[in-house]
Amino acid sequence: MTAVGPHLLGIAGLNREQLDFLLATSEQFIGINQREVKKVPTLRGKTVVNLFYEASTRTRSSFELAAKRLSADAVNISAQSSSVTKGETLKDTVQTIEAMAPDILVMRHPASGAPHFAAKQLTRTAVVNAGDGLHEHPTQALLDALTIKQALGKIDNLILVMVGDCLRSRVARSNIILHRILGNKVRLVGPPTLILPAFKELGVECHHHMESALEGADVVMSLRMKMEYLAEAFVPNADEYARKYCITERLLSSYAPDSIVLAPGPFIRGTEISSEVIDGPRSRYADQVANGVAVRMAVLFLLMKGMGERVTVEEHA
Amino acid sequence: MTAVGPHLLGIAGLNREQLDFLLATSEQFIGINQREVKKVPTLRGKTVVNLFYEASTRTRSSFELAAKRLSADAVNISAQSSSVTKGETLKDTVQTIEAMAPDILVMRHPASGAPHFAAKQLTRTAVVNAGDGLHEHPTQALLDALTIKQALGKIDNLILVMVGDCLRSRVARSNIILHRILGNKVRLVGPPTLILPAFKELGVECHHHMESALEGADVVMSLRMKMEYLAEAFVPNADEYARKYCITERLLSSYAPDSIVLAPGPFIRGTEISSEVIDGPRSRYADQVANGVAVRMAVLFLLMKGMGERVTVEEHA
Amino acid sequence: MTAVGPHLLGIAGLNREQLDFLLATSEQFIGINQREVKKVPTLRGKTVVNLFYEASTRTRSSFELAAKRLSADAVNISAQSSSVTKGETLKDTVQTIEAMAPDILVMRHPASGAPHFAAKQLTRTAVVNAGDGLHEHPTQALLDALTIKQALGKIDNLILVMVGDCLRSRVARSNIILHRILGNKVRLVGPPTLILPAFKELGVECHHHMESALEGADVVMSLRMKMEYLAEAFVPNADEYARKYCITERLLSSYAPDSIVLAPGPFIRGTEISSEVIDGPRSRYADQVANGVAVRMAVLFLLMKGMGERVTVEEHA
Repeated sequence: MTAVGPHLLGIAGLNREQLDFLLATSEQFIGINQREVKKVPTLRGKTVVNLFYEASTRTRSSFELAAKRLSADAVNISAQSSSVTKGETLKDTVQTIEAMAPDILVMRHPASGAPHFAAKQLTRTAVVNAGDGLHEHPTQALLDALTIKQALGKIDNLILVMVGDCLRSRVARSNIILHRILGNKVRLVGPPTLILPAFKELGVECHHHMESALEGADVVMSLRMKMEYLAEAFVPNADEYARKYCITERLLSSYAPDSIVLAPGPFIRGTEISSEVIDGPRSRYADQVANGVAVRMAVLFLLMKGMGERVTVEEHA
Repeated sequence: MTAVGPHLLGIAGLNREQLDFLLATSEQFIGINQREVKKVPTLRGKTVVNLFYEASTRTRSSFELAAKRLSADAVNISAQSSSVTKGETLKDTVQTIEAMAPDILVMRHPASGAPHFAAKQLTRTAVVNAGDGLHEHPTQALLDALTIKQALGKIDNLILVMVGDCLRSRVARSNIILHRILGNKVRLVGPPTLILPAFKELGVECHHHMESALEGADVVMSLRMKMEYLAEAFVPNADEYARKYCITERLLSSYAPDSIVLAPGPFIRGTEISSEVIDGPRSRYADQVANGVAVRMAVLFLLMKGMGERVTVEEHA
Repeated sequence: MTAVGPHLLGIAGLNREQLDFLLATSEQFIGINQREVKKVPTLRGKTVVNLFYEASTRTRSSFELAAKRLSADAVNISAQSSSVTKGETLKDTVQTIEAMAPDILVMRHPASGAPHFAAKQLTRTAVVNAGDGLHEHPTQALLDALTIKQALGKIDNLILVMVGDCLRSRVARSNIILHRILGNKVRLVGPPTLILPAFKELGVECHHHMESALEGADVVMSLRMKMEYLAEAFVPNADEYARKYCITERLLSSYAPDSIVLAPGPFIRGTEISSEVIDGPRSRYADQVANGVAVRMAVLFLLMKGMGERVTVEEHA
């Protein structure tokens, strides 16, 4: 993406025009995943390496499918089998991978900034951040935005509410940055241990009660409440958390009757979000997953073809 | 497979005509695996997801090869790296996968009925049961039947003997159902702890001595005796089990001199089956494995092309 | 490779002409990895199975990329998920795999000789040794030789020094054999616990001081010092090892000023080799990795096409 540098490391640094172009390109790829023949020759002869230092079914599968449907060769490397256990530095690992001449390195890492560090070491490989520590998960925020655009017909002039663990969510962070670029109003809601006053510096509102947070919301986004965190005393227990912060139809129909609901998944039914909501008409969960493949196809495509060229997908299809 | 519904969940429910068609189609695929170029464009642009909740080299590899030789894109998801560990329900896992627009979900699961449950959640994805708990393993029974047809020139009017742990074998169950549809005589043989009188309700004979069971058999099938079961006191110990139930050439030449021997593998030489038998001329082990790829190609092909169309493989090759 | 038998099990047994042909063929594949479209249809419809009983990021990825860039289908089987844990013998495992009709079996195994054993069981599958116990790792020695040829313009009349754990290095062993075939002078250097007098029978010099070993060297090769070995008392501790045997620019500029440096990776900076050296102009580390893909493409290609035919790569590109 010439206009944003050769990598996609985060939403931070992108401007409105770039976001619009990313989403418009992603929209062109949605259709390919609905065809009888879900494959285009666009990236034939390109190599995508998925380097995952954290387990992830959906993100890795989504990137792998995106690569394969573009006819790229995809190679998966997981931390368990990697040379990391043999004492190799991250710099040496990514430079070794680059020497095998991949075109794109998709990287998930528990350390914030790891993909940025990798990008600095590499001279011929585009890096895509597939989630780094507590920092960013840009393709998730893009697929959420694409889903909002599909559902509501616009991505600005919106009130967006994120419910749950904003403290340890790279999904929240990327979404906050994206929606601030778009000028949307962003509200965070959750217990005071997870929604710190310092978040206000990001240009968002902080709430501790669902009622005030949801008032007039267009989009309600559930954040994953990791069960292991319950034990860490950030939250008293799952039942009490659910009583105060579970996204229910009763709350939504009272305070945000026209809202759609997003959930990055996996989600815990009845704790973060009620089954009535997730299985109901507000939920855009399946669209999010489907759009994830399209967004990742668009990102791989643009990193290879250059954002400046403004090529259309169909030329390559 | 229009005639049997859109999934292959088990042998139960299939009729004789459907079995014949499945085997005839499989026979057409055997040749592709023997060519110089072992690949046909039949399923180009289709996506096969292998979702395995139990480790399995041979079944997963066999399905993966079948998909790739049909030019489909294959993505492997194993339970170890799946979202299951994050508390996600099976319903949500398979619906998430469906949202990525796979065409076929090949599923192995330790819980009986899991693929049937999955199939009910999905509206656009064909499900293939690759082994579910103690229930069914339909492609194994089909590859066994194909091997019998190749070796004996027929699949009916046969006496089939299964030796070993029928109690905990989905392979036994699928084979029993298949050979009852074909009208074959099925005998089970093993210690009384593993061959329960209740099995007679399935229309089979129960034996506790090899001599009576093998008398006049056309096909002898070894079932896997899991070593961990020995510790569970179902069987006194490996040596005593072998003395009574190991399939030996001495037994076969006395009681079933014209029989062929099948073993689903992996097998324990000298306990379940003697090396003389498995490496000898009666053994059809290698044919079973080769036919496994052909049967899985046929199943993937038919689920995509529709059983009703009666298309031939070569049209697509 | 008709001239060397149907497998590549080791460097031992190859002659000078065969090595030259392997390297010349590898050189033709280097360019493919530098193209925009890094894919040729040469092995379309062939199946490569990577059977790895030891974890290995770089070797498995390198073979997988080599296979995919030749348009072969690649299937990975790792020991963790294999039937080995179900008590199956190696013979039965590889015969089962052969029954699925792969063309090439790439095999890494902790037992020396395992690929040779596998090759003896198989009648239709070419076996490539990707590292067996303390025995051989032939593609590593070939990529090292290709890197030397590139850097120095020749592969004979050289002094080659290997530093470190020659006792437990299959890389060392394959390189010693290769460079003895070429008539090069090979020196080993390290502590007396790792460089045994018996090594002299291989036709090499044994040194315990870097100064004498490096004198006039053309090529200096670092061998991996596994950290777990430090605990085994073969080496006093990492610091003392580094003081005596770390490859530093000070040593090289004094004793081997024109030398190039190879490291099979992963390496421990500051223990085996200084960062100044590995990141400096002598280092050919990135070339080694890049050449690894080219060498493996050449090996897969020659095993399929026959060494005798002397076909050129471009015909198939």
